[in-house]
Amino acid sequence: MTGILAGLRIVEGSAFIAAPLGGMTLAQLGADVIRFDDIQGGLDSDRWPVTKDGRSIYWAGLNKGKRSIAVDLRNPKGRELLTALITAPGEGAGIFSTNMPARGWLSYEELSKKRADLIALNIVGTRDGSAQVDYTVNAITGFPLVTGPVGHEGPVNAVAPPWDLATAYAGAMAILAAERHRRLTGHGQRIVLPLQDMALAATSALGYLGEAAINEVDRPRFGNEIFGTFGRDFRTRDGRYVMICIFSDRHVDALAAAGGFAEAFAAIESRTGHDLKTDAGRWNARAELCAVIEPWVAARTADEVGTALKKAGALWSPYLTFRELLQDKDAVQENPLFTVIDQPGIGRYPVAATPLQFGAVPREAPQPAPKLGQHTDEILSGILGLPDHEIARLHDEKVIAGPC
Amino acid sequence: MTGILAGLRIVEGSAFIAAPLGGMTLAQLGADVIRFDDIQGGLDSDRWPVTKDGRSIYWAGLNKGKRSIAVDLRNPKGRELLTALITAPGEGAGIFSTNMPARGWLSYEELSKKRADLIALNIVGTRDGSAQVDYTVNAITGFPLVTGPVGHEGPVNAVAPPWDLATAYAGAMAILAAERHRRLTGHGQRIVLPLQDMALAATSALGYLGEAAINEVDRPRFGNEIFGTFGRDFRTRDGRYVMICIFSDRHVDALAAAGGFAEAFAAIESRTGHDLKTDAGRWNARAELCAVIEPWVAARTADEVGTALKKAGALWSPYLTFRELLQDKDAVQENPLFTVIDQPGIGRYPVAATPLQFGAVPREAPQPAPKLGQHTDEILSGILGLPDHEIARLHDEKVIAGPC
Repeated sequence: MTGILAGLRIVEGSAFIAAPLGGMTLAQLGADVIRFDDIQGGLDSDRWPVTKDGRSIYWAGLNKGKRSIAVDLRNPKGRELLTALITAPGEGAGIFSTNMPARGWLSYEELSKKRADLIALNIVGTRDGSAQVDYTVNAITGFPLVTGPVGHEGPVNAVAPPWDLATAYAGAMAILAAERHRRLTGHGQRIVLPLQDMALAATSALGYLGEAAINEVDRPRFGNEIFGTFGRDFRTRDGRYVMICIFSDRHVDALAAAGGFAEAFAAIESRTGHDLKTDAGRWNARAELCAVIEPWVAARTADEVGTALKKAGALWSPYLTFRELLQDKDAVQENPLFTVIDQPGIGRYPVAATPLQFGAVPREAPQPAPKLGQHTDEILSGILGLPDHEIARLHDEKVIAGPC
Repeated sequence: MTGILAGLRIVEGSAFIAAPLGGMTLAQLGADVIRFDDIQGGLDSDRWPVTKDGRSIYWAGLNKGKRSIAVDLRNPKGRELLTALITAPGEGAGIFSTNMPARGWLSYEELSKKRADLIALNIVGTRDGSAQVDYTVNAITGFPLVTGPVGHEGPVNAVAPPWDLATAYAGAMAILAAERHRRLTGHGQRIVLPLQDMALAATSALGYLGEAAINEVDRPRFGNEIFGTFGRDFRTRDGRYVMICIFSDRHVDALAAAGGFAEAFAAIESRTGHDLKTDAGRWNARAELCAVIEPWVAARTADEVGTALKKAGALWSPYLTFRELLQDKDAVQENPLFTVIDQPGIGRYPVAATPLQFGAVPREAPQPAPKLGQHTDEILSGILGLPDHEIARLHDEKVIAGPC
């Protein structure tokens, strides 16, 4: 291990996105992250998308670079093994992350009896412990009712799950904060992170609750427009879409240069009195800006539009499908973030490393996700010091399992 | 300071969401986070939403609990002061976070001349340093073309910015990872985090690139349905919407109990051969499930539906507007996450603390965002040790500014 987090060991009992992605984030930075699952697999072991023969591409994406141990979670002997693993000695060990119900043997109270300075991150649904997922949390945030086309009735759900992503990275951060605290004081602790509170805190940070409270308005749907400045999608002659934004003076000038809009923009300013160098001016003149830009984009191919915007240094981007993104040279094919790896049972495809570049250590290439139980024996031997005959007996008794 | 990150000091040169929210995350955990801005304010100082008299609710939301210093960034003397501040001695100090162009005096090379063990997080647009925002990054991820109603033509943008959120929390985590490394080795470092790479790494983690590569399909739009299991919105008799999901066996049974669907679900299983206790079975039988649930919801009020689902322990949630969320007892009004604070110039409203609950320290109530330059004098005096007459001279020369 040569990553920035070399020396840390996290034991993870997890499923779905938030907890697994938090652990993977630490694994891709060099921590030894051990995910345990029941010998039957976790709740997410078959989660879609899957390959034609049913292997979970989803699971492979969210568990890269971890080690896997498979244990019968209903067997008291299996629970004892995992308790020993979670609470094993070592300066950088004794860290547990879970979004399973942290009750009974998995509770902080029980586990910390075996290691007093244990750090345990419990990701829960709501603060009172009831189940929630990104989709149910998102429904109450208010965002689905302002997302989607103007005139659409009803909610529009997010596909990229914002609250799972936030919880994953904030949870990983919390583990490092607690590990710092332990290093300074010697004390471990339990950390509780409710997915719902994560979403509510972010919604508060983004100003939506403040706007509702102070201005006493429910913001309407603005479709693809960026509220409070200028930005939206445009359709090209060849039926493609581009996103064009203005966030600063420089972007106004660049966009004007790209399309030859300088005179038209000046005319908008003098006709409407809106100053395009301000957020408010751009927002209030957005229909007029659109009337200038839309026909220019519509008369050109995506290539022509992109070339002009790029040359002028405008703030823009094409819309891509997932397959187009996969083939995109700059974003994927020639991006050092990606490495083509062989994911056993699934195949060879480009997979991302951590997006973080630490100057002190080289970025590690992404590693495949483990097979279920791939590291059962080496973990029991290497960390718990179990002799081979004992491991063999545990296999015979079906307390543990290796890879199928 | 009693938070879990007490003793850390981060100096931040930032605007918009990712860098400010990352800093605020650390501030709400007890770090001393000092945001510097030009005496004219930052690019985001007037960002919408704003109050009726133009005060930015957005800025207030993203900069809570920080200290503010206002300096003329074009004045060499101002730059000297900030360089001294960023590189000031102290074990937990010497940490800089920015999404400004980290060139010239703000480059790692220049700053680390004054403090060799400096940690600097540079959030950039793309890996080659060109500008990007959440909206342009999102366009290439593929998500906008699969978000929104089935049959809709063209992209649907996210309103909650997933990549800014991810970058904020991953950036905060990276600072703690580098601080750990510095404590262990004595070495500082530069960290580069491209917003675009963050989005691409998450898109890869979530399996979308793997699906495109291995199955060679572009996933179509599925509207509000959760791909690969059962979940979607339903409209109640009184015109409200609820999200209902199934992620496990338990959720199937709970939903069946709530609506009296046990027989109907069994009939679906025997008629179609799909096992509703599997992800694939639920997904493939989603039209049949919908045909059972939809009329039940449509015949009842939101209150009736919610009461039944809650009682049965189903996985569900109502959709709320921002104003409804603000008034919601459980989520906001009686949630200890929120405290009503007085944000100077804006007013009193409920504001979120950190969603993280660390067992070792009490959660700190949220603090207001500072006024621009509110702490200029105390920072120059307290950290740089400047005498009062020197600070007065800097004010006279308009190198620095206090609050207006």
